Amino acid sequence: MKEQVLNFQDFTLVDNSMMIIKIGGGKTINHKAIIKDLANIESKFIVVHGANALRNEIAKKMNHEINNITSPSGYSSVLTDDNAMDIFLMSYAGLRNKRLVELAQECNINAIGLTGIDGGLITGKRKTAIKAKIGNKVKMIRDDLSGRPNKINTELINLLLNNNTVPFLCPPILSEEGKALNTENDSIVSLLAKELDNVKTIIHFIEAPGLLQDLNNENSLIKKIARQELEHVEEKYTKGRMKRKMLSIREAFENEVEKVIFADGRIENPVTNALKGKCTTIE
Amino acid sequence: MKEQVLNFQDFTLVDNSMMIIKIGGGKTINHKAIIKDLANIESKFIVVHGANALRNEIAKKMNHEINNITSPSGYSSVLTDDNAMDIFLMSYAGLRNKRLVELAQECNINAIGLTGIDGGLITGKRKTAIKAKIGNKVKMIRDDLSGRPNKINTELINLLLNNNTVPFLCPPILSEEGKALNTENDSIVSLLAKELDNVKTIIHFIEAPGLLQDLNNENSLIKKIARQELEHVEEKYTKGRMKRKMLSIREAFENEVEKVIFADGRIENPVTNALKGKCTTIE
Repeated sequence: MKEQVLNFQDFTLVDNSMMIIKIGGGKTINHKAIIKDLANIESKFIVVHGANALRNEIAKKMNHEINNITSPSGYSSVLTDDNAMDIFLMSYAGLRNKRLVELAQECNINAIGLTGIDGGLITGKRKTAIKAKIGNKVKMIRDDLSGRPNKINTELINLLLNNNTVPFLCPPILSEEGKALNTENDSIVSLLAKELDNVKTIIHFIEAPGLLQDLNNENSLIKKIARQELEHVEEKYTKGRMKRKMLSIREAFENEVEKVIFADGRIENPVTNALKGKCTTIE
Repeated sequence: MKEQVLNFQDFTLVDNSMMIIKIGGGKTINHKAIIKDLANIESKFIVVHGANALRNEIAKKMNHEINNITSPSGYSSVLTDDNAMDIFLMSYAGLRNKRLVELAQECNINAIGLTGIDGGLITGKRKTAIKAKIGNKVKMIRDDLSGRPNKINTELINLLLNNNTVPFLCPPILSEEGKALNTENDSIVSLLAKELDNVKTIIHFIEAPGLLQDLNNENSLIKKIARQELEHVEEKYTKGRMKRKMLSIREAFENEVEKVIFADGRIENPVTNALKGKCTTIE
């Protein structure tokens, strides 16, 4: 049987939906290839990006120690005190966001780089005290500047989308008191999917061909997952970050989303590759 | 005679003009005081800010050497190669811009932080080869990523201003080829004054009470300068950065601008102070 070939035109003609492109913050992500490939997409999209590896690199150069914390239920995150927020802003809002916008502008995508604090784009509630597991002990942490997003300024995002610009978003988000908060990008993605109209597809670009049965074997790609199987799959992933990701996918499907894709962000033509189905598709 | 007291209401009732607030990049600038005071202004305004001292500080922490160059005519600037642009983005677009936006949000100013590359907001032409004086010799430099702004995306700025957001702008700007370019903030300010409607007032917050007759004596404040005297005053300032500033003021007056103020950015209530005339007023 001949392999089915989908091109962008087919895709965007079939449904004129909105896509959320999530670009992971891993070291080996090929940003240039992703942006170059996105320039061929005709449907509307929004980019949400990380900068995890870059942040760690800059922190190291500046002799700033990154403090990882684990919640009692096993979700891991980074402690963001005021100094850590400085480094966070430099790497996410500064270097990564603007270099992505620059790449986009070079490819004639009229990107506009924003964090959640700009124009009150993404607001959330600060966790004033969080429990964290340090060794076997659970400690209360009170200087962490992080929280969960709960509101999108959809008016501003739609204004930008309808006026020939493509939002390229990253944390921090804005607390009710007007402070910058670190947050999980996956939470931003699910909230965007919930609050924006017509978000049908989410593509996560990661440092793997997709979700793997065996994390150490890139040939063990899981091609398809039915959304009903998600909870079962989630149990297999015991690591903090992946647990969060699975949770956010389940949240996304509670809304209009029809397809969540995990695709390789390291290769050439990563968007084409993802839309052709050489990845993990959850639907 | 009783001192004349102007308050913001008087000011904004007299003319409903637009203001450009330029915040210098000096180390002793009191950002919190400026933003807190701006929250009382009822007329529309845009902020353009620097981050010079912060950039130097971050560069030092990252063991990156700043290369200052001087043009044969005496204007000084910083050489911005690709690595220097990284540091530039971290400090201007990242740390300073977002901390200012955060301060503004805390004061209920709905700031939206953008560089010139975002949404193609400010474009310019790259200087592919610049002459620089190094010692007594003039050398040709070809890896400098800088240029002069020549176009503002006024549609986008007006869209933001008319939709309840206040642009907080900083370099880089966008080259014709889609690359990030360093530029002089004073050039951005004069171009904004030229291309936006109804810019009547420009306030420059600097690390001095205003322009001084004797640079080493803060009591030698020049209270008023008639615009006709500008060229004469310019001759007195031989240093590179101040020379540029005077040039950009003369450019601003070629447009609708009626008043350029140089005011102390280090004190409490700096905006009130400036509007009360405790500064240098050029008109």
